[in-house]
Order: sequence, then C-alpha cells, then structure tokens
Amino acid sequence: MISTSAEHPTRRLDDVIHQRVRFGILAVLTEADRADFQFLKERLGLTDGNLSRHLQVLAEAGFVAVTKTFEGRRPRTWVRATSTGRSGFNNHLVALQEIIDQTKAGTK
Amino acid sequence: MISTSAEHPTRRLDDVIHQRVRFGILAVLTEADRADFQFLKERLGLTDGNLSRHLQVLAEAGFVAVTKTFEGRRPRTWVRATSTGRSGFNNHLVALQEIIDQTKAGTK
Repeated sequence: MISTSAEHPTRRLDDVIHQRVRFGILAVLTEADRADFQFLKERLGLTDGNLSRHLQVLAEAGFVAVTKTFEGRRPRTWVRATSTGRSGFNNHLVALQEIIDQTKAGTK
Repeated sequence: MISTSAEHPTRRLDDVIHQRVRFGILAVLTEADRADFQFLKERLGLTDGNLSRHLQVLAEAGFVAVTKTFEGRRPRTWVRATSTGRSGFNNHLVALQEIIDQTKAGTK
C-alpha cells in the first residue's frame, strides 16, 4: 500500500474530453486539419446519432466547430478542433502520460 | 485531412476501464498491492456512493476483488486489482500510449 494520500492525477482529467468517443473524435481532429462527419463516423465506428450527440457536447464546450458546406447539391458536414479543443486535448494527453509513467514506475 | 479510414485505436479502449473514475481506481490499485475504501475515496475525491457504484462495475467485470475485514470492531473494506484487472489496465495504457505517440507524430 502506498503511503501518500495526495490527489491522484486522474482528478485533473476533463470528463468532456476523457469520454472514449469524444477522446477519439479529438484525437482524429488533432491529427487532421478537419474531418467530415462521414469520415469520423467510419473511423470511430459510430452511428449517426452517437456521433451527433458527442459532437454537440464538444461544440457546447467550445472544443470543436461544425460547419456545413454544399458540394453541388450534396451537403457535407465538416468538423474541426478549435484552439481551445486542441490545447485541452494536449493537456489531457500530458496528464495521461503522467499517469502512464507513474504506473510504470510503481510496478517496477 | 488524413487519407486513411482505418479503425482508430480508441475503438480498442474498453469503456469499463476508460471511464475516468474507474481509470483512477485501477491506476491506484496497479500502483499499490491493495487499498482500502477510505483511501481510494480521498485520493480520487469521490463520495461513498460514487466509489461504491464504480467498484461494483469493476467487480462485475472481474477487474477488482473487494474483501471486508475487521480491525477490532471496526470494519474495513479492502480493494485489490485482480490479474485480469491488472492486465486489462496495462493493455489500456499501451493503447493510450499509441494514441499519444500517434497524435504527437501527426502534429509535428
């Protein structure tokens, strides 16, 4: 049993970002400039409803911006991470890296 | 926009393990041999109800084992990660590390 009762780094993780589907959306959008709805759906294995619901949570938090364009008469929905979203996601990865390193050190 | 539509590694993340509170519980239990209920509660900043609920989900998945002991007349609840829980959590960290490294490479 470890002796410290200090706050655990998982307490710094943002639930809006950490949730698995939203974590995936932000990971894809951090790798890419922008992605369209169909691409996100296929890459993350989501239904329309599930992706829409999580995009709404991310948009309300200011982490993504959604824009609609038309290619001819075909509508296309584009999603990109905002700068707040990018920095929030990067901070999240820093916290996760800390937890990974701490766990590795603890099990050595 | 990236060209591949291959499956994203977040699809390999187990929701039982990934959820922030349960991720924290497993992180603490992987660092320690075992932890008591009170310690987990304080370190993770949880209420009794919240910790109990998430421990039940982890126990039902076979990831933690809960035992009750008495110290004199005072009951104490101990929690430890099972070997399934430890290997599940370690695999989870491997997937997270892959996502972190992939994101870093993509933003270079």
